[in-house]
Amino acid sequence: MKPAIALDAMGGDFAPANTVAGAILAARELGSRVVLVGREDEIQRELNRHRAKETSLSIVHASEAVTMDEAPAMALRRKKDSSLRIAANLVRDGQADALVSAGNSGAVMATAVFVLGAVAGVDRPALAAVVPNRKGGVTVWLDVGANVDSKPQHIHQWAIMAHIYAKNILRVASPRVGLLSIGEEAGKGNDLVKETFKLLRGSRINFIGNVEGHDIFDGSADVIVCDGFTGNVSLKAVESATETLFHFLKQEFSRSWRTRLGYLLSRPAFKGFRKRVDYAEFGGVPLLGVKGATIISHGRSSPRAIRNAIRVAGEVVENRVNDQIQKEIEESTHPMRSETA
Amino acid sequence: MKPAIALDAMGGDFAPANTVAGAILAARELGSRVVLVGREDEIQRELNRHRAKETSLSIVHASEAVTMDEAPAMALRRKKDSSLRIAANLVRDGQADALVSAGNSGAVMATAVFVLGAVAGVDRPALAAVVPNRKGGVTVWLDVGANVDSKPQHIHQWAIMAHIYAKNILRVASPRVGLLSIGEEAGKGNDLVKETFKLLRGSRINFIGNVEGHDIFDGSADVIVCDGFTGNVSLKAVESATETLFHFLKQEFSRSWRTRLGYLLSRPAFKGFRKRVDYAEFGGVPLLGVKGATIISHGRSSPRAIRNAIRVAGEVVENRVNDQIQKEIEESTHPMRSETA
Repeated sequence: MKPAIALDAMGGDFAPANTVAGAILAARELGSRVVLVGREDEIQRELNRHRAKETSLSIVHASEAVTMDEAPAMALRRKKDSSLRIAANLVRDGQADALVSAGNSGAVMATAVFVLGAVAGVDRPALAAVVPNRKGGVTVWLDVGANVDSKPQHIHQWAIMAHIYAKNILRVASPRVGLLSIGEEAGKGNDLVKETFKLLRGSRINFIGNVEGHDIFDGSADVIVCDGFTGNVSLKAVESATETLFHFLKQEFSRSWRTRLGYLLSRPAFKGFRKRVDYAEFGGVPLLGVKGATIISHGRSSPRAIRNAIRVAGEVVENRVNDQIQKEIEESTHPMRSETA
Repeated sequence: MKPAIALDAMGGDFAPANTVAGAILAARELGSRVVLVGREDEIQRELNRHRAKETSLSIVHASEAVTMDEAPAMALRRKKDSSLRIAANLVRDGQADALVSAGNSGAVMATAVFVLGAVAGVDRPALAAVVPNRKGGVTVWLDVGANVDSKPQHIHQWAIMAHIYAKNILRVASPRVGLLSIGEEAGKGNDLVKETFKLLRGSRINFIGNVEGHDIFDGSADVIVCDGFTGNVSLKAVESATETLFHFLKQEFSRSWRTRLGYLLSRPAFKGFRKRVDYAEFGGVPLLGVKGATIISHGRSSPRAIRNAIRVAGEVVENRVNDQIQKEIEESTHPMRSETA
């Protein structure tokens, strides 16, 4: 039987319309089993609108919803009947196998870590961005989830987790793992990088050494690891830079009739471009190292993005990614290298 | 008399053509005094080509040139007669007031710090990117020059230096200074950020608290400070992401006749766009905290970018930016807060 995916039906900017529509797509196209968690009447209305009668779709009622700008800690403490929390509870209690949410990503992370807990041996779960690269593939980049004051052994574990993810879900035979630094030479970097370098060099993964910021998008590595502070700041800087560039470009296009006509003719190019860089298309961002599986989708997820996230969540379960992570971390980190703690 | 600017005439992808042309523009349009340092015959040939007879332009011969991919430490140790080194020597010896180079930026930083030394009181000079923001202004972002394992008092000093730079050179009356972190609340961040936050809150600058990665390009701060590891990695990630996006966009434009025609019509928009985001247009990137003044221009600098860098270098000298930095750091950092060291 297919894994059951608990979907936070109320999470995201276009919930429950896009979440329910995404679940229906997953059920119809992939045969996915999805438990839609949220306000029953609203979910049922959306199901009716699509005339969805799939028996692989079920509803579990939750009276509250976490808003997109709510503080994660507050959501965790106060909203015990939120769709997110109930969905996580279903996974914890074995009534579902994995969690998908397009909601407030901080709240999803906090809730998943708190309710599901970490895979045995994992010190800190990490959020892995899956970004398109120049070579036409994708790069798994973690931690971008703001694990602060990361230690070398944390980053070592993230490298192992992302290696297993890239191998099983992205089907890269021997993922090249790079360590993000300020120069490619082995001696380049801060103290954290230098210590982490030693751990990675001694590990069984395909460690290709230090990489730089420009390598994130040029396809020279399949996995790039860094501390959660650097990852979170850099990812947000990249998002803001690209938004600002397109804002400027739009302004320039609106300056004359010629460029406005040019834009109209160019629309298929912009559309194709958006499709290529929209990382929701890659099935969302995995929170690696928590029990079950948690996929966080973009707040603006389309039904197709939700469908893809459900697909990826199922693949993580079916490929026993967590069992592999647990086994590999056990074998890689004993004896514990406590001198780097 | 105008300050004398020592220009590394052999530095950059299009040297000496663009460097000499830039110096001529600066002399003709701004009355700048420029000492062109490099191979005399090559420089003279370029001057002749432009029929430049300005007496404010002079040549100092240097037999060597640092290449763009040379290791900075090697350039410093081995190429004692490089145009970069001789230009720095001129500033050290008082024969010029400031240094401008579009050459190998790592080598320029290393040479400037080694030859010129730091302004009294400054622990570590820092490289400040000047990036366009969504509000149509620019944001000074430092350190992007890879000062690793930065301490809170270093970042505090960089905040002071950039504050003075923004005030004097960018003419922002009371620059808003933000501290780069993973959340806006005061308690958010790694240990370094939390310690630095305390120093900045107690300082005399207009500290607006923590900012996030997306604030770098949205204009919510005039100055953004961070450790040199985070800054260097993030800036390179941003550069690579934007290059990759335009690479994708170009591919999409080439797919059909319609989009190719659209591109032709849209060219003025792309041209206007490039002008807006080309940070060489803002006069290059200041290396703050070294004696004299050092402006590092983009390797692909146009003559106009070189002219602007010469202008900015002159303004740094004329506005006595270093005297202000020295005074402000003296007043701000006594008594030394050694408990955060």
